[in-house]
Amino acid sequence: MYAVIMAGGRGTRFWPRSREKKPKHLLDIISNRTIIQETVDRIKPLIKPKNILIVTGKKHASSLIKQLPEIPMDNIIIEPEGKNTAPCIGLAALHIQKRSGDAVMAVLPSDHAIVNSKKYLEIIRTAAQLADSEDALVTIGIKPTGPETGFGYIERGDSSGEIPAGEFFRVQSIREKPDLPQAQEFVRSGKFYWNSGMFIWKTSTIMNAIFRFLPDLYAGLLIINQAMGTPREKEAVRQVYKGLKSISIDYGVMEKASNVFVIPGDFGWSDVGSWDALREISAKDINGNAFIGGSDVITEGSAGSLVYSPQKLVALVGVKDLIVVETKDALLICQKGKSQDVKKIVGALEARTLKKYL
Amino acid sequence: MYAVIMAGGRGTRFWPRSREKKPKHLLDIISNRTIIQETVDRIKPLIKPKNILIVTGKKHASSLIKQLPEIPMDNIIIEPEGKNTAPCIGLAALHIQKRSGDAVMAVLPSDHAIVNSKKYLEIIRTAAQLADSEDALVTIGIKPTGPETGFGYIERGDSSGEIPAGEFFRVQSIREKPDLPQAQEFVRSGKFYWNSGMFIWKTSTIMNAIFRFLPDLYAGLLIINQAMGTPREKEAVRQVYKGLKSISIDYGVMEKASNVFVIPGDFGWSDVGSWDALREISAKDINGNAFIGGSDVITEGSAGSLVYSPQKLVALVGVKDLIVVETKDALLICQKGKSQDVKKIVGALEARTLKKYL
Repeated sequence: MYAVIMAGGRGTRFWPRSREKKPKHLLDIISNRTIIQETVDRIKPLIKPKNILIVTGKKHASSLIKQLPEIPMDNIIIEPEGKNTAPCIGLAALHIQKRSGDAVMAVLPSDHAIVNSKKYLEIIRTAAQLADSEDALVTIGIKPTGPETGFGYIERGDSSGEIPAGEFFRVQSIREKPDLPQAQEFVRSGKFYWNSGMFIWKTSTIMNAIFRFLPDLYAGLLIINQAMGTPREKEAVRQVYKGLKSISIDYGVMEKASNVFVIPGDFGWSDVGSWDALREISAKDINGNAFIGGSDVITEGSAGSLVYSPQKLVALVGVKDLIVVETKDALLICQKGKSQDVKKIVGALEARTLKKYL
Repeated sequence: MYAVIMAGGRGTRFWPRSREKKPKHLLDIISNRTIIQETVDRIKPLIKPKNILIVTGKKHASSLIKQLPEIPMDNIIIEPEGKNTAPCIGLAALHIQKRSGDAVMAVLPSDHAIVNSKKYLEIIRTAAQLADSEDALVTIGIKPTGPETGFGYIERGDSSGEIPAGEFFRVQSIREKPDLPQAQEFVRSGKFYWNSGMFIWKTSTIMNAIFRFLPDLYAGLLIINQAMGTPREKEAVRQVYKGLKSISIDYGVMEKASNVFVIPGDFGWSDVGSWDALREISAKDINGNAFIGGSDVITEGSAGSLVYSPQKLVALVGVKDLIVVETKDALLICQKGKSQDVKKIVGALEARTLKKYL
């Protein structure tokens, strides 16, 4: 069994900590390990490092190698450009087939937080059995805690039986990010899960699905496959990627395929998608303040704030619900609930002559 | 004519910029000159540097000398400890009498901001004439712009005539800091001015008043006077100060004397008493944001904030009415209207083992 960790994201919403050279998964935002280190640590008891592949961009490969000394260099797969998840998964499947023929692969985002690793591993293990025996595309669904509009949703159909980790279901539909009324209805119905972006399947199953639903991608993968292990490989990948459409595995395959199952992943999950999300999962004091990264903070009539300031003493006076993030050259002060707009700051920095802060 | 600049304050409310070793008047908070440099610059056209005395504590004397190279070293008068304004003024009066016998002295706070220097000088000049001819204790009153409870007030009596700078009035009463309803009544009446802490009088006039209303202080000043210019001077000052009560000139003399006059000082004044006060007098952009000290700031849906961050890029996202002050080792984030509580932070730092931030 293989793990494929997708580490192509930029994570601009964690500016000013995330930078062009340091995307979110390379940051120690949640603990003293980086998020990708935690991701590897978490899956290691089930899948040996030599079977953990990481797909990333050229810019971040060297940082990854440094952060993950236990992962063989050959397991770092470089995409010449980001084309969303479908090409990334297809490329990883090729590598696995080359090494081991047909095998189960667990596709894992590099930058999520999980509370209960033991339960998580149990579910991945069960999902692998299901993927193997049923020739299925298995997804992990997260029970919604609220009508989030930032996630895709998975609608479950009939129960398909019991597995050691609980019930699993045939998938009725896969939905893109909904608007608020839709999300509220999803949550009310009790039949929807958040799409965690974790997938488990055999390489043969996903390649067959790509052949059927994404024939252009399949054709590109064939070209890459012929060049693999030859001096032409890198150039072939570059050429093929240039012509590929950006498309997610959800939209390209999961929404269309019929052999899709969902296992509810009740292990405490966060996509840590923003400073607000981090604020929510962080331990708080009696006033609802969270001080992370060893920050020295003194407060006077202040509540509900997240502070990351490893270098400086921070004094909060009469403030409510702020996110304060201090780095070597930049300082973010953001109202709770507005951290999606941090992306706009990054956009504005790009537009202005302030690229050094990117 | 002499100027006596009182530079004994600590200015804890400007933490984290003001520190034990750098009180407010030594900071370049308003312009690229420090506040005391501005105070000296402002009065210089009327009073030569050799007639400008500065009263301060031992801790800050060397910084003062560095910042004010045009002021003769002998003009820096050191108080061994702070005992409020009455002893400070008495000590300065002794020094002036020693040099020039009876002379007019203008007592000026070291840490206020004034918009119109020309008008200011005209009023000080006129006040000096009045102090000289009428043997009067002359104060400068500021027309209130609101019911401030942080200032003392001066109640004017009958008009005493016209001077080149406008009308002047006999003082009916001097009031300590009022509560809000009282302050509101003061403002409504139209008869009250803020007490700017600027006083103009002859040395003989103030020494007579101290003799009458503060006999203990007068006795102490006599002892110092006998030691002045001898090797015993420093020790005499130390001994006398040890026994002195802390008392303000307002409470000790002005409230009790009868020959007190007020000249309205219509020159644009602020005591710059807090970050809020600074925020008010700072130039703002279209969203009411003020960026001082060369701060590089980028905003997204943010308004009404003051930012001082000369070292770092600051991004404000969705925040309103904040005061953000960044220094080498500390960061203050304070809600507008709460900057009086910055004092409490300093108090808390004293109480905890965080003295390095004081």
